[in-house]
Amino acid sequence: MKEKDFISIIQTTLNSKYIGDDCAYLKDLGIVVTQDNLVEDVHFSGNYADPYQIGYKAVMVNISDICASGGIPKYLTIGLSLPDNINENFIKEFYRGAKSAAGRVEIVGGDITGGSKIFISVTAIGSALDRNISSRRNAVVGQKIVISGEHGSSGAGLNLLSGKQYNCLTDEEKKQLINAHLMPSAQLEFSGKIQKCVYGKYAMMDTSDGLADALAAIAYESSVLIEVDFNKIPHSKSIEKLPDYHNLVLYGGEDYGLVASVDSPGDLLVIGEVRAGEGVKINYDGYSEFLTKKDVEEKIFKHFKE
Amino acid sequence: MKEKDFISIIQTTLNSKYIGDDCAYLKDLGIVVTQDNLVEDVHFSGNYADPYQIGYKAVMVNISDICASGGIPKYLTIGLSLPDNINENFIKEFYRGAKSAAGRVEIVGGDITGGSKIFISVTAIGSALDRNISSRRNAVVGQKIVISGEHGSSGAGLNLLSGKQYNCLTDEEKKQLINAHLMPSAQLEFSGKIQKCVYGKYAMMDTSDGLADALAAIAYESSVLIEVDFNKIPHSKSIEKLPDYHNLVLYGGEDYGLVASVDSPGDLLVIGEVRAGEGVKINYDGYSEFLTKKDVEEKIFKHFKE
Repeated sequence: MKEKDFISIIQTTLNSKYIGDDCAYLKDLGIVVTQDNLVEDVHFSGNYADPYQIGYKAVMVNISDICASGGIPKYLTIGLSLPDNINENFIKEFYRGAKSAAGRVEIVGGDITGGSKIFISVTAIGSALDRNISSRRNAVVGQKIVISGEHGSSGAGLNLLSGKQYNCLTDEEKKQLINAHLMPSAQLEFSGKIQKCVYGKYAMMDTSDGLADALAAIAYESSVLIEVDFNKIPHSKSIEKLPDYHNLVLYGGEDYGLVASVDSPGDLLVIGEVRAGEGVKINYDGYSEFLTKKDVEEKIFKHFKE
Repeated sequence: MKEKDFISIIQTTLNSKYIGDDCAYLKDLGIVVTQDNLVEDVHFSGNYADPYQIGYKAVMVNISDICASGGIPKYLTIGLSLPDNINENFIKEFYRGAKSAAGRVEIVGGDITGGSKIFISVTAIGSALDRNISSRRNAVVGQKIVISGEHGSSGAGLNLLSGKQYNCLTDEEKKQLINAHLMPSAQLEFSGKIQKCVYGKYAMMDTSDGLADALAAIAYESSVLIEVDFNKIPHSKSIEKLPDYHNLVLYGGEDYGLVASVDSPGDLLVIGEVRAGEGVKINYDGYSEFLTKKDVEEKIFKHFKE
């Protein structure tokens, strides 16, 4: 069974209006909340990520979800389970990395227990006061698609860590791509700017599962067609040299950029717009490609999960 | 290394005023938050707990922490990691149990991922609006010690599940004790009543790690002596027959009762009071026992963790 099948069972069992977006918006408390797991050998490997980097990324991906909701990240709790052979230094470095990624967001609690593999589950809480909170169901025809972050770098970095030989890259370029994968940055500033670009409902997601996945999720949950120009998607120059460049940008994932549908983009980078229809249309030089949700899932699986 | 050593490293690394109580009280947001892990073969075993019971207890222990803070439990998120061989039925039953335990508390999100063992990390959020929030640091000399829940049943139930032969018990008594261990109840009503028994600062904890552990934690964090009458501690009649009766009541753990120091106990069950000094004094018929924090830790280890 796949994660999406699991989630569908959970939705049916709980029958909750909250399940669906990455953050739950708890209006009565004026907060947004998200919780994400990171499991050793599934989401990261101790072979290439050190404890500092693991703590850093575990926190950052949750802050990214709060940013994607439009809320202001405020607090974190960390549930950590560690094998018996883990030493004091791991814990120290993990929390040093976590604290560094958290910045002004405060780590206020959690739990630490024994286990067989490293398991991390981080909860982030954001303030929704005076904020317009997004939902992937909220894109409206006529809105512009804006984006932040560089896309494709994290996927290229993971490929390098997994042993792929990108001989066309310099050592410095390789280092930057690997760093993009191990220590991503959440888009706090962009998330704040979005508030001035929307009058009513809007959609926003982070690109944790790939840009195309986020576009398809918004398109299908909002029942709209999203059309974007591939050439406008921000990315590192270095990955243009790679044979799988297009796939990295669209399907690579874990870049933790934000993509949103807004009424008035101001000075934000516009890559496309919301039209009537359903699905995702990517325009390249001289041709275009239409993607259904299923197309996107198959491409992610083919290029990155096989 | 033990969990308490881990927590001390985390406290030093994070240097946060929030770490210490089971819930973090986030005043600016008007909420309390807690996160607890449950790991297969550490906190529960698939050999004796079914998926419904696992989901039930995972949720209830977190609701119990919110109750212990004095907040009103409102929302839950669940991080779940499951081995590949887990089937659809496990997930359905787990969430049915979780939903049943949650009652009016709503499960609003979380994450589900692959892994090698079952790992559960639940976050509970409570409202602190119009509530006086407790801390284990807050006991004041002169306050009364009040308690809810039955103590010792869960420990006896765990012993039965682990193969201990309590031949003096009837099958019905055994069933009740096992149920107390597998499906505890959080003390929502008692937690609400406490609000009317305190004028200012007060301490409250749940008895998840044993009643003596909670008393010692409050005593040492508040720098007071807590004196209680053993005979007044509520417990199931059936465990009085057991050879380890005293130890079960004081050190058994996982009963999820609440124990609090309050100014005016009203109709709540009083088992002792807060005096000047430091430590825990247990009065029995005709003799008494003084316990330091270290004594309590050693007894828990000797009787239940060996």
